[in-house]
Amino acid sequence: MIAQPVFVLVRPQMGENIGAAARAMYNFGLERMRLVDPRDGWPNPRAVALASGAGRLLDQAGITQTTAEAVADCDHVFATTARGRGLTKPIVTPERAMEQAREMIGQGRRVAVLFGPERAGLENDDIARANAIISIPVNPEFASLNLGQSVLLTAYEWRRQTVEIVPERMEMAGADPATALEVEKLADHYESRLEEAGFFFPETKAPGMKLALRNVWSRMPLTRADVQIFHGMMRQLTRWWDRAD
Amino acid sequence: MIAQPVFVLVRPQMGENIGAAARAMYNFGLERMRLVDPRDGWPNPRAVALASGAGRLLDQAGITQTTAEAVADCDHVFATTARGRGLTKPIVTPERAMEQAREMIGQGRRVAVLFGPERAGLENDDIARANAIISIPVNPEFASLNLGQSVLLTAYEWRRQTVEIVPERMEMAGADPATALEVEKLADHYESRLEEAGFFFPETKAPGMKLALRNVWSRMPLTRADVQIFHGMMRQLTRWWDRAD
Repeated sequence: MIAQPVFVLVRPQMGENIGAAARAMYNFGLERMRLVDPRDGWPNPRAVALASGAGRLLDQAGITQTTAEAVADCDHVFATTARGRGLTKPIVTPERAMEQAREMIGQGRRVAVLFGPERAGLENDDIARANAIISIPVNPEFASLNLGQSVLLTAYEWRRQTVEIVPERMEMAGADPATALEVEKLADHYESRLEEAGFFFPETKAPGMKLALRNVWSRMPLTRADVQIFHGMMRQLTRWWDRAD
Repeated sequence: MIAQPVFVLVRPQMGENIGAAARAMYNFGLERMRLVDPRDGWPNPRAVALASGAGRLLDQAGITQTTAEAVADCDHVFATTARGRGLTKPIVTPERAMEQAREMIGQGRRVAVLFGPERAGLENDDIARANAIISIPVNPEFASLNLGQSVLLTAYEWRRQTVEIVPERMEMAGADPATALEVEKLADHYESRLEEAGFFFPETKAPGMKLALRNVWSRMPLTRADVQIFHGMMRQLTRWWDRAD
């Protein structure tokens, strides 16, 4: 396992842009790419043509159908987006994000960075799975960075943070951070019980309420032990309530 | 005169790349472009098409036949190049170069940055006119930055040097952080319901479990809205369970 963040391209459209992203990454030494549901299928010959010397990243890219699967083994997820979207999350610069990534990876944690599709960018549902948002400090009067440029700048900041830097070690005090998959399962557990209990009401508001709740879970710095406590609480409540029937 | 460095594209080939460079610059607030002997003449409709919202930079771009003319009014010139070429010049990172540019421009000096043509890069004759060389710290095993990418990264570093960039902020979206009292009440609410449901078992372990749970709540960066969501979840679960009795 290479001690690097994973760059996840979510629903990328043009094969050319996937190839260009691979080149941008490899220019700065990043090799771990994942693709969520690429529009034109996979493998994509146009991506290969554009990647040229960085084709190895495409050969080794992991492909998944959903963003949740792509980050399942990661325990810290950044989402790159131009807009804050009114979601309550920390917003960091690429520099600060890659500084944090370096620190976390030095502690053995697994970090992912999500990049949205060319036109629309990430959906709220993707962002709900992120712990923090990366916002590139562009000219407020003219913000037109494309996918490849966002990947390039973030990869550049990774290299700035890591070259000539001695990897550090830090004790986690027995508290492993929860992986995205563990948080996802916790969110699923609560969502299904709350669904049964009629929490998501009225129906028109249900999707927004579910999104808000996913956001809460992913924003919390949950450890594995925390996740077990929350599971345990809900299990015991359910058991008690079944007993009362 | 805008207090900014001039970005000089030396013998650029494709109009598209000139337009893309204008966009890259303007994304980071840079507006002063000069062109030395563009291959396809000037103006170039393909440059205009690619520049879209940054077309003003092209309208105002100064055109010269030689690099010497393009930098005639400048008193410090950086040349971007992948190779040092064995010339005895200071070689700096983009970050250090833009830091120096900011200092010099603050003293009323005029700074230019040269970017070479797409394929070949700057010639030794262009570089000979530079005071220092900018070298982007790419992966030594894979250096394939194109013109637009070099312009983008250098412009990004200019913005990092000149704009007060907040390293981290919280998108609060009307979401005030919860007070300690609100978190305390939330913890009380859960504790009392879980007590009823027999969660704190066996009794000898109950104090430790309660403490652990208090710890979880207080470690979470909860907003007031989050606290309401958690209260609401528990209230609805309780209501449902009472109904089931």
